[in-house]
Amino acid sequence: MAKVLVGYYSKSGNTKKMAEIIAGSIKSNGLNCDLKAVEDIKAQELLIYDAILMGSPTYYGSMAYQVKELLDLSVQFHGKLDGKIGGAFSSAANIGGGNETTILDIINAMLIHGMIVQGDSQGDHYGPVSIGVPDSRVEDNCCRFGKRIADLVKRSLNE
Amino acid sequence: MAKVLVGYYSKSGNTKKMAEIIAGSIKSNGLNCDLKAVEDIKAQELLIYDAILMGSPTYYGSMAYQVKELLDLSVQFHGKLDGKIGGAFSSAANIGGGNETTILDIINAMLIHGMIVQGDSQGDHYGPVSIGVPDSRVEDNCCRFGKRIADLVKRSLNE
Amino acid sequence: MAKVLVGYYSKSGNTKKMAEIIAGSIKSNGLNCDLKAVEDIKAQELLIYDAILMGSPTYYGSMAYQVKELLDLSVQFHGKLDGKIGGAFSSAANIGGGNETTILDIINAMLIHGMIVQGDSQGDHYGPVSIGVPDSRVEDNCCRFGKRIADLVKRSLNE
Amino acid sequence: MAKVLVGYYSKSGNTKKMAEIIAGSIKSNGLNCDLKAVEDIKAQELLIYDAILMGSPTYYGSMAYQVKELLDLSVQFHGKLDGKIGGAFSSAANIGGGNETTILDIINAMLIHGMIVQGDSQGDHYGPVSIGVPDSRVEDNCCRFGKRIADLVKRSLNE
Repeated sequence: MAKVLVGYYSKSGNTKKMAEIIAGSIKSNGLNCDLKAVEDIKAQELLIYDAILMGSPTYYGSMAYQVKELLDLSVQFHGKLDGKIGGAFSSAANIGGGNETTILDIINAMLIHGMIVQGDSQGDHYGPVSIGVPDSRVEDNCCRFGKRIADLVKRSLNE
Repeated sequence: MAKVLVGYYSKSGNTKKMAEIIAGSIKSNGLNCDLKAVEDIKAQELLIYDAILMGSPTYYGSMAYQVKELLDLSVQFHGKLDGKIGGAFSSAANIGGGNETTILDIINAMLIHGMIVQGDSQGDHYGPVSIGVPDSRVEDNCCRFGKRIADLVKRSLNE
Repeated sequence: MAKVLVGYYSKSGNTKKMAEIIAGSIKSNGLNCDLKAVEDIKAQELLIYDAILMGSPTYYGSMAYQVKELLDLSVQFHGKLDGKIGGAFSSAANIGGGNETTILDIINAMLIHGMIVQGDSQGDHYGPVSIGVPDSRVEDNCCRFGKRIADLVKRSLNE
Repeated sequence: MAKVLVGYYSKSGNTKKMAEIIAGSIKSNGLNCDLKAVEDIKAQELLIYDAILMGSPTYYGSMAYQVKELLDLSVQFHGKLDGKIGGAFSSAANIGGGNETTILDIINAMLIHGMIVQGDSQGDHYGPVSIGVPDSRVEDNCCRFGKRIADLVKRSLNE
């Protein structure tokens, strides 16, 4: 059965809250899903998942260094994530404050791993964004994101 | 006396409204400022300004093709905008809908022209963003943006 | 049978040459593939393809306005490209001259359409890049890109 | 007298070599310049410089986490770098391998600090890029970059 990882770094709790909603949505769409803080993820573990989602607060327009550290360490098995599904989400203090560039920063890393990403023609196009504490708009976006990832994983694995 | 151009493309009127506020702010900070739709700007005209600001709606994560057409045509005098001040702004339908990438798309073009851009540690960091019709938050951001551009132009020209 | 479109804009012929190699690779990997200049593509046509690849020269760090015009016009059927495969390639005059941002500009538009993109852990990670006239390195990258797109389309359609 | 910091992270020595050339060029253009590995820079030190340049290898399309850690820590004096000059450079393994996105990742952080950046209409537009060991093309770009930064600092401070 397909396995998804939702990894996140969170200080205020906002990104963690998003991660929980996304993981809940993936599970209720029928897939196994692990929810872990990046500090608790060993790079090697990334290999066991069919899909990897990463969330980070928006810090100076890109992912928190703790998230980047995990990605930098994944170079030891470069090429082995090829063909896996990826996705990203972020919480930020302000509109236009770097949330899109943070998500794309993570997506770029996934593309360089040869991973597969999908945008969304509705809502937050690159991945879910929260401005401050996640509200009902963000909850909807995170649920939708989890469902779409689950659908993509199933389609990709012909389940 | 220093001259600033505020160029924009606008269909709904949202980007135009932002352009008007920015141009007003630049004037009230003591500089000459022309406000023009991109359809009415000949590429050659860009040469006469000390600072060039460009606004575009967010269309598929980057500037409207009408704005890009003007920038593409500016290649005929490539190198001649070097050292001028630049800046960008955008209106979008959604948070996380591509407004940052649209602004950075314009900024990248300005960097490739050798132009100088400044971010802002407050508010919309890369440039003013409106989600839908400009509200008072956007008005404040546009006024602040105009003032900062005016200050940078004055500092740059030692006025 | 799956159908792929390779669209391109080309003035010098470099991007066109890349497009031809990519289209050839897709065909030799068993898929139908149309090769068209963007000037000859009606936005509505995009709907009939399972995968859409777009190539553009690097003009001021993003796609040529002729490519953007086609994408802007696709808003009329926004949402209908959701789930299709996408990819991008670019030719540029210089290393570090904007080729990556041009490819990502196109990829961002595809993500906003809800499309699926895959990077590559080898070679040009975001999509094939040529610095000047395509050489044997570029040919290899374009062949590889065509094969990977064909594989992704087949996997996606369970062919 | 104006003071410039050239900070870098380097494992292979390629980014360090670029940093040395840039620092040499800034000095020979008449400014004070400190050259430091990011591990040896305390965030607080950034405050004493008129211009800050940062170099990083290209790791998964963005700056090494060691560079990001320094930038993340600078949040403690957010707003105090406003108006300073910034710039970025990167070494990468491949053309199209993420060097531009790495440089822009650093530049975005600088914009969010309210800093001022300038592109270049010649050579590597966003900032100097080395593919592998710096060759004479890269040396020229780094020298040119140092001179342009020095000129911008002087113009900015009316020296």
